[in-house]
Amino acid sequence: MIEVGSYVGGVWMAPGEGARDIHDAVTGERIARAGNGALDAGALLEHGRRVGGPVLRAMGFKARAKMLKALALHLSGQKEALYELSYTTGGTAVDHMIDVDGGIGTLFVFASKGVKELPEEGPLLDGEVEFFGKAGSFGGRHICVPLQGVAVHVNAFNFPVWGMLEKLAPCLLAGVPAVVKPATATAHVTEACVRMMLEAGVLPEGALQLVTGGLGDTLDRLGPQDVVTFTGSAETALKLRGTPALLRNSVRFTAEQDSLNASILGPDAGPDSPEFDLFVKEVHREMTAKAGQKCTAIRRILVPEARVDAVIEAISARLAKTVVGDPREEGVRMGALVSAGQAEDVLEKARVIGSEAELVYGGMEGFSPVGDRAVPGAFVAPHLFRADPDAARRVHDTEAFGPVSTVMGYRDIAHACEIAARGEGSLVASVITHDPAVAQEAVMGLAAWHGRVYLNDRMSMKESTGHGAPMPQMVHGGPGRAGGGEELGGIRAVKHYMQRTAVQGSPEMLRAVSGVQVKGAPEVASEGHPFRRKFGELEVGQVLQTEAREITLEDIEHFAEFTGDTFYAHMDEAAAARNPFFPGRVAHGYLLLSFAAGLFVDPEEGPVLANTGLEKLAFLQPVVPGDSISVRLTVARKKRRTAEHGEVRWAVEILRQDGEVVAEYELLTMVAG
Amino acid sequence: MIEVGSYVGGVWMAPGEGARDIHDAVTGERIARAGNGALDAGALLEHGRRVGGPVLRAMGFKARAKMLKALALHLSGQKEALYELSYTTGGTAVDHMIDVDGGIGTLFVFASKGVKELPEEGPLLDGEVEFFGKAGSFGGRHICVPLQGVAVHVNAFNFPVWGMLEKLAPCLLAGVPAVVKPATATAHVTEACVRMMLEAGVLPEGALQLVTGGLGDTLDRLGPQDVVTFTGSAETALKLRGTPALLRNSVRFTAEQDSLNASILGPDAGPDSPEFDLFVKEVHREMTAKAGQKCTAIRRILVPEARVDAVIEAISARLAKTVVGDPREEGVRMGALVSAGQAEDVLEKARVIGSEAELVYGGMEGFSPVGDRAVPGAFVAPHLFRADPDAARRVHDTEAFGPVSTVMGYRDIAHACEIAARGEGSLVASVITHDPAVAQEAVMGLAAWHGRVYLNDRMSMKESTGHGAPMPQMVHGGPGRAGGGEELGGIRAVKHYMQRTAVQGSPEMLRAVSGVQVKGAPEVASEGHPFRRKFGELEVGQVLQTEAREITLEDIEHFAEFTGDTFYAHMDEAAAARNPFFPGRVAHGYLLLSFAAGLFVDPEEGPVLANTGLEKLAFLQPVVPGDSISVRLTVARKKRRTAEHGEVRWAVEILRQDGEVVAEYELLTMVAG
Repeated sequence: MIEVGSYVGGVWMAPGEGARDIHDAVTGERIARAGNGALDAGALLEHGRRVGGPVLRAMGFKARAKMLKALALHLSGQKEALYELSYTTGGTAVDHMIDVDGGIGTLFVFASKGVKELPEEGPLLDGEVEFFGKAGSFGGRHICVPLQGVAVHVNAFNFPVWGMLEKLAPCLLAGVPAVVKPATATAHVTEACVRMMLEAGVLPEGALQLVTGGLGDTLDRLGPQDVVTFTGSAETALKLRGTPALLRNSVRFTAEQDSLNASILGPDAGPDSPEFDLFVKEVHREMTAKAGQKCTAIRRILVPEARVDAVIEAISARLAKTVVGDPREEGVRMGALVSAGQAEDVLEKARVIGSEAELVYGGMEGFSPVGDRAVPGAFVAPHLFRADPDAARRVHDTEAFGPVSTVMGYRDIAHACEIAARGEGSLVASVITHDPAVAQEAVMGLAAWHGRVYLNDRMSMKESTGHGAPMPQMVHGGPGRAGGGEELGGIRAVKHYMQRTAVQGSPEMLRAVSGVQVKGAPEVASEGHPFRRKFGELEVGQVLQTEAREITLEDIEHFAEFTGDTFYAHMDEAAAARNPFFPGRVAHGYLLLSFAAGLFVDPEEGPVLANTGLEKLAFLQPVVPGDSISVRLTVARKKRRTAEHGEVRWAVEILRQDGEVVAEYELLTMVAG
Repeated sequence: MIEVGSYVGGVWMAPGEGARDIHDAVTGERIARAGNGALDAGALLEHGRRVGGPVLRAMGFKARAKMLKALALHLSGQKEALYELSYTTGGTAVDHMIDVDGGIGTLFVFASKGVKELPEEGPLLDGEVEFFGKAGSFGGRHICVPLQGVAVHVNAFNFPVWGMLEKLAPCLLAGVPAVVKPATATAHVTEACVRMMLEAGVLPEGALQLVTGGLGDTLDRLGPQDVVTFTGSAETALKLRGTPALLRNSVRFTAEQDSLNASILGPDAGPDSPEFDLFVKEVHREMTAKAGQKCTAIRRILVPEARVDAVIEAISARLAKTVVGDPREEGVRMGALVSAGQAEDVLEKARVIGSEAELVYGGMEGFSPVGDRAVPGAFVAPHLFRADPDAARRVHDTEAFGPVSTVMGYRDIAHACEIAARGEGSLVASVITHDPAVAQEAVMGLAAWHGRVYLNDRMSMKESTGHGAPMPQMVHGGPGRAGGGEELGGIRAVKHYMQRTAVQGSPEMLRAVSGVQVKGAPEVASEGHPFRRKFGELEVGQVLQTEAREITLEDIEHFAEFTGDTFYAHMDEAAAARNPFFPGRVAHGYLLLSFAAGLFVDPEEGPVLANTGLEKLAFLQPVVPGDSISVRLTVARKKRRTAEHGEVRWAVEILRQDGEVVAEYELLTMVAG
């Protein structure tokens, strides 16, 4: 018997009084009990807020990203133990990988994005500076800073590892401590994973707490800096969402609920097409992976009316080959649901759907799971229904959270989108088509009702990630029945744990706050050529103003001849003057860039190693023969890349003799030291 | 007596049964009655959803932006009538301008952003494409599409015009029809403005409906595609937010509530500094503008302990010069509150604050408003209190929505931030300082608890927009007590009325959905040089592949000598080889760009008028003497700028003889036709 404890206030608590039993889904045996005795919710929250939060915030993005990577590596080394334990939840080896490897992969992606896409320290900048007057003396920009409270993550039973980590990764990267509340049925797997993470020794105390029993009055104590993210049923979401303290204190509440996801076979995909096979494979996988216990699983199968029979036949043939039983047995492809209670619920929902639909494959008659250890309780055979999408109503509002799905025929894409929308908001819809016009029409019809639209065809099927797989880079969530929330989506998810704040002030003040150069901010004093200073010695706001150089007609002609760029605006006075943008012959833009480099470059070996790129180049004014240009180079932003060097971004202005800026851009260099 | 009607289902309804009276704030006279008799909420919503929504969505961003501009221009021509009517709300001429001109200005900003920052048609793209495999055959990107429901805007009484337009501008730009529900006390001003907008003849039927009476069961009928945005008291917000239908259907609910905004005088700002004067001016303005009836007004004045007396003296001196009375009277600087009821409420709250604070200036004793028409009911004299920030508690949770504010001394910036945070979430805090280090520390201390932090000093004061003024470009809202919502903030606000959807698929499918080139999407067939095709003839995905050109050592040396860029990596084999990024001498990046232009340019006069810029240039591989380069140019994105020409963005790859991409960038050109 596993004693599934809770980790609160830096201490492991035994299940204690009121502990709840956990059963092996396959054998029905009682294998664990979970709980936390008398939870002191006040202490729980204060530990996160006072102990975990300040340390996490002080670390900065980069250190937190490295922490995520260390957690991912540590868990990778212990995957086998998690797989082994996961067999008790009813899943197969493949199911465990979806959960465990999916979770670890999510940590890796956020670790990598944290290093690449977030600043090393200081606030996360959101958007560009906007100025409010012509002189540019007052502007504004948005910054994001970590919330100073605690995030309470309420997770569903179906993904005890991924479900925790997909919330935890962006939360910790943002700098916000978490309280994880797993569903009881699989809390023992979550607890094992939490123990491993704590053993990794990289999490600051208070950053992660675990409550495997009830949350007590935790939600009643949440305030303006706290967050709740919930995954589970609409019913529970509704109950939690209405907690008076959450409403009163404007506590952010994100819900990700099961939904009636649809998959659409394109009208172009005939029975002999690669897309037809692909569609059948995806549908079959979504029906049987995790025994259909996925919030993204395909519940409604929408196919052209003329293809209904063929699709039913093909899916049925695949289901017929799917061995259901004890997931430890050789050859078993689909395991048990998480519990006998869940199985009952699914069968009840299947009866509701069946009241308006015809069972065309599967069902419980004559079904028994494979394997000596398997007791019937939690096993559910696949159920494939066929329904009239316009006549049947319950198929659009009844979520059977198991291997149950319904085939429906549609007339045209508009009809298919309309049927999908009857789900009143879903996490995902997929469209399997090789016709870009079908994809375009379907996406525009589906998007408002879905958090994700998944397109697949022969071109993408090899690398495609699956209808049901939320990727860390893409938002996960959906409107209405799906909960109205958003998770994942790369850095977007990190921002869900941060306050976005508009900051207004002079360029100098905005620079001080953001750590990056702002147009108009005064020069920071320095001596000598900035290319002679190492990465650590360069300061944002330091300036190099070069000498001037005249651009002659000979320069322009020579450049044209040398490069081959004999565009008429450089070569033919009359033709150039006919161009609405030029007064007559003008210098090449690339000539200006090249001469600018000649003016600002410091030729000898030094800390500046390479010009790696250039951004936001705008040619603002024409330069005509006889004009002179000089260059003003300002250190605009720094980001360390390795121990040896970092990226320095320079704001460059090319100035004409009259002081007009003729071109501006950001220059990227790699600088040593 | 003005009959303030409601505009529902394309028909004006008279106030009818249950109409509510509106009184002149100055004279107390009954001047209007507002209502809508028996509201058919179902018909109201269906009219927006079925009639207004489809037409708005079909228009696209550009047409909707032009519609906003037309509305702004039309209202600009009728400002005087709105000013005149606004006198009945108690405000001064300056107050009317804040409301009316502020609202029109917001329309103009969203109109301009709609043209500049949004695509002409198709979905709004959010972020870049991410690929999920090495071959790049499957990727994802996020799009935003308009919600297909109705937005219910519940507005506060204090800004009958701006309050409506700041919600309406992003909502209509997004393509979502609105139902405007003004507060009764100033509904006659809102109604007048709505009539003007309808008269402008640019709004599609169903895009804008007005309900000046009760909303009936409107909120109970909202679904997953609808939105509620609320401005007003925390109490009402709480009530609306808890509507079961909103919770059950995950209806987006944005609240912007009054809050206890603070202004902080920097420790550097001594009594003789420009910042001290600026601080006093801003505080005085926020106390008296709209008679303090602004959700962003300064309720808590935080100054260094040693400056408390000086600040009180200076503010009192300014208040002493502020004539309060009938706003139509010459010399009057502050008018009435909106109603006698509001005045009573403010005085009650002032008593609460006064129970823990000392009244140091003003108060009702001996106060009477100037002007023969002015009856005492709705007039409140300024109240300036002084309190101990750590001992007093009610000053941090009591919002007197009038000319009432409290001076408190702080020890250091951390203490000031802590005091500000006791407001449990505010819309805005300001810091008046000339010291960037103070600004930096204060912003980092304040940001998590505030939607906006406003910095001001001698450098920015001329163009600064005011502590209390939400700008269309900056988010408006705040955590906790401020409601937890976000409005405005440029295009961010438009997205609040859209569904963000992750789309996954092959590059070709993503291109079809997004309308822009995606790396790996197949070439679109074309003939001849693309520079010979007009804007309208170019298609995203068309490609030009150039001939190759060898880069010789002579080219490199010649380029160095000609441009002056004699950086050692180009000139000195031994030194270049010591550089960690180069194998030996390499070609200049600008040489590659210049030669590339020589390869792809079509020299004769044609539709391509100018190279206006370049973005996202990355040098990926070194090019050494003897290498050859060729260029691949793909039409990546198009955007019409004027009737005569549009911007074409080209994806450019510079390829080495071995097929490696050595540089890639986006080239911007202006193309005629």
